[in-house]
Amino acid sequence: MRILGIDPGLRTTGFGVIDIAGQSRIYVASGCIRSGEGSLPTRLKVLLEGIGEVCRLYQPEQSAVEQVFVNVNPQSTLLLGQARGAAISALVLAGLPVAEYTALQVKQAVVGNGHAAKEQVSHMVQRLLHLAGEPQADAADALACALTHANHASGGLANLGMKSRRGRWVSL
Amino acid sequence: MRILGIDPGLRTTGFGVIDIAGQSRIYVASGCIRSGEGSLPTRLKVLLEGIGEVCRLYQPEQSAVEQVFVNVNPQSTLLLGQARGAAISALVLAGLPVAEYTALQVKQAVVGNGHAAKEQVSHMVQRLLHLAGEPQADAADALACALTHANHASGGLANLGMKSRRGRWVSL
Repeated sequence: MRILGIDPGLRTTGFGVIDIAGQSRIYVASGCIRSGEGSLPTRLKVLLEGIGEVCRLYQPEQSAVEQVFVNVNPQSTLLLGQARGAAISALVLAGLPVAEYTALQVKQAVVGNGHAAKEQVSHMVQRLLHLAGEPQADAADALACALTHANHASGGLANLGMKSRRGRWVSL
Repeated sequence: MRILGIDPGLRTTGFGVIDIAGQSRIYVASGCIRSGEGSLPTRLKVLLEGIGEVCRLYQPEQSAVEQVFVNVNPQSTLLLGQARGAAISALVLAGLPVAEYTALQVKQAVVGNGHAAKEQVSHMVQRLLHLAGEPQADAADALACALTHANHASGGLANLGMKSRRGRWVSL
């Protein structure tokens, strides 16, 4: 099964595509869509078309979107919400089921700690997918979201590549 | 020229279609799209498809979307933002240029007072478009937004059906 993870943002939206093959998670592609400097509708269009292109190119069967952070600034929250709305629209238009995960769920699944730092997420994504280098920040979050969905989709609540030792999650 | 106005909301999205013929504004259609009770992606899909259907049916040439109210509750603001993002996505996908107007601009254009009550907007929409009865609240706001764009598109900053008397806007 192929999963597309999305980390939505108005300026930059990260995407990550992985395959599940048994217990293995295989990296397919990742990157960022930058919306440029135009009007809001123009930027949402870039986002829509970008995600549409990723769907056509990689033909994912499921998708997962990170639930965005509610900013203290209401105007920023509104802008972020609009980007997320456009991203989900693109996925729905591509006929994909859309799962949603909070940042806490993603960190818990990938790092084993819901309050892990961003760098730890990126580091674990690199390890779990056997990447030569660390992916870009937005792409790493999108891949982490796809990995979280892979974990849920394969039925396990088990931590990815992690094992509980004396009740705490530790890296293997 | 035919204009589609949209008043986006996650629960209910109003739409209103009008024609401009010289100085006349002619009512074509209006209504509400209700997103139902499903998951967020499902509700955004209903919204996307609903607006897509309105575009196919009435073939507008331009569109105008009301800028939504930034709620005190960040979670509500985020939900509203997502609905607005999906609405703009639907318009962009239909190939329409999208103009945006604040509630203040809409009220100023339709009632002549940026701080007019909602009922006044609805009442003026009914009068300006010669409707037999008052339209539903969300549809009235969408029609008001279309009327505002008609005003801008026809080059006038003049108030719709209103005239300045001693520096104040009054209803004719």
